[in-house]
Amino acid sequence: MKKTLVLALFFITAFSFAQTIEIGVKNSIRSTSLNEDREYWVYLPENYGNEHYADQHYPVIYVLDGEKYFHVISGMVKNLSDGYYPLIPECIVVAIKNTNRSRDLTPTVDDSLSYETGGANAFEAFIAKELIPEINTRYRTLDYKVLVGHSFGGLFTMNTLVGNTALFNAYIVIDPSLWWDDKRYIKELDHHLKSIDFEKRSLFFADANSIGNQKKPSPQHYDHFEAKKMAIEKMTLNPPKNLSLNMAPYENEDHGSVVLPAFIDGLRYIFEGYRIDVKELMKKPGLLQGHYKLFSDRIGFDFIPQSTYIDRVVDLLVKRGDTTKSKLLHQINIELHPGNSYLKHKDPFTKKE
Amino acid sequence: MKKTLVLALFFITAFSFAQTIEIGVKNSIRSTSLNEDREYWVYLPENYGNEHYADQHYPVIYVLDGEKYFHVISGMVKNLSDGYYPLIPECIVVAIKNTNRSRDLTPTVDDSLSYETGGANAFEAFIAKELIPEINTRYRTLDYKVLVGHSFGGLFTMNTLVGNTALFNAYIVIDPSLWWDDKRYIKELDHHLKSIDFEKRSLFFADANSIGNQKKPSPQHYDHFEAKKMAIEKMTLNPPKNLSLNMAPYENEDHGSVVLPAFIDGLRYIFEGYRIDVKELMKKPGLLQGHYKLFSDRIGFDFIPQSTYIDRVVDLLVKRGDTTKSKLLHQINIELHPGNSYLKHKDPFTKKE
Repeated sequence: MKKTLVLALFFITAFSFAQTIEIGVKNSIRSTSLNEDREYWVYLPENYGNEHYADQHYPVIYVLDGEKYFHVISGMVKNLSDGYYPLIPECIVVAIKNTNRSRDLTPTVDDSLSYETGGANAFEAFIAKELIPEINTRYRTLDYKVLVGHSFGGLFTMNTLVGNTALFNAYIVIDPSLWWDDKRYIKELDHHLKSIDFEKRSLFFADANSIGNQKKPSPQHYDHFEAKKMAIEKMTLNPPKNLSLNMAPYENEDHGSVVLPAFIDGLRYIFEGYRIDVKELMKKPGLLQGHYKLFSDRIGFDFIPQSTYIDRVVDLLVKRGDTTKSKLLHQINIELHPGNSYLKHKDPFTKKE
Repeated sequence: MKKTLVLALFFITAFSFAQTIEIGVKNSIRSTSLNEDREYWVYLPENYGNEHYADQHYPVIYVLDGEKYFHVISGMVKNLSDGYYPLIPECIVVAIKNTNRSRDLTPTVDDSLSYETGGANAFEAFIAKELIPEINTRYRTLDYKVLVGHSFGGLFTMNTLVGNTALFNAYIVIDPSLWWDDKRYIKELDHHLKSIDFEKRSLFFADANSIGNQKKPSPQHYDHFEAKKMAIEKMTLNPPKNLSLNMAPYENEDHGSVVLPAFIDGLRYIFEGYRIDVKELMKKPGLLQGHYKLFSDRIGFDFIPQSTYIDRVVDLLVKRGDTTKSKLLHQINIELHPGNSYLKHKDPFTKKE
């Protein structure tokens, strides 16, 4: 018994002194659609746990190939949303860990391959009916959701865009494997472009130079290149209705190297118009709502400026000694976020910096 | 006593179920040069703790404004160095947390300012004589070091490049504040360019469009822009001797938004030539040493290909059933890394994937 106690205390001590840097947490959910347990990793914004902002809700970015990209994309989200000049709002990141990648991300069965295929419908059902509700229950989410996928993940993301358009508000597709199943996606694209109203969804489509950087491109490389080219041509000739579309060519990137730059560019594109000119805002706090009204119209979602950001600007005004403007902006914050206890317990106007 | 045990067990249980995602550890060092404690954050490559690679040593990337960029830059390093097509080697990342940013990063005193200035010499002494030796003692480092700095951190990095050239092997400078002290750096630059042999150091210099994206650029913006322009002109007219130099213009980025893309581009530039064509390597394992000999010549540092990477390719060859080539490449790994126990305890040729 005594030995156990010593051991227990040793572990506690070890943990307290480790001072590890944590960026998220691993959760698991039993999926009925897939008949297996699925692990997902969650990153929360810096001030998520701050009681002053207990009423703030956040957009959610769902990332495929989660175990590979969770670390870097959550870091990007953190930096793109911080400071006085954020390019995107603070977001929750949910990264889905793979169990059987090719099965989950491909829409049709190909028996000629050595790996399992054709499970995209079941995987989409898991995301739509199990994962998203779970995230909405466990975290303070806004109903603004982004899906990010590369390669097979890009194919899955494109499929969701046309098959279940409303499920996400924005889609970041990176060098998608549209060659799949004899370019099945391309064959059906004209029909989709004619029939679908994309309801102000956004699509960022990163197109790497899949051939240019290969010493000896394989038939597979040409097929991949050709399929993407056809998708781009079709979407140019017959622009998707009501879709904010950016098809970005990456001349100097290949299928793998394109991912990191495309994460940055994609996140920035889908939230284009989010950033407000902070100098103007400090002069005229009343600009705030008009700015976010315009942004909301663009993205088709009623986006309330984040309390954390307004607060940073209030603090800056206090620091600069501008009591009138800081009070004005603070008042706007109170009106926009009545549930945030921050606004009851903290008086920014007497605060020492 | 019993209560303590229950409490202790509760904590252990809580820790075991939390499943947090950790990316690094916070350490602290007492600095004599600065007469204060300094915190630094460390990221270690995925396989750092794997006994199979116990003999592998890593380059070290030192990052200024550490608390702001540790998360994202360590994530980028992770992705850029993984898989079969790594663009950079696996590296240790050391992020230095600020205590008094303007004091540490500016080389001269300016009494007209409200903040403390002029402590760059002491801060450089801390890095050179205290921090680097500490890192080299605590971790398995290669003597290949990179310094990364933005804004005032870029000024500090440029200053170290000319004042203590040999301290780092590569310098990533992002939109540096060369306007400092009436463009003091620019005034001294011609002299430096004439007198310094840069000994195969590398400099990646990210030049944001500091004016183009401003509605109303301030005199400070113009000063910043002008100083950078003069530095670029001088380095173009009078190329630094023995310096691999990339001055990259970012037309669509401002002083803040340039940081993330410049991290990616800078890391890729300083390790240019690192990536080997894995398909060729699988056909001719003997290409390995020649490739890294060329790379070593370029960077002026004898770089041994990493055991972790070679091992991934050996595994791939095993998976593809190519016993001859996998044995050949494995043998090269043994010769390059005689201290790695991996090579004694694991037989890749009978391994099941």
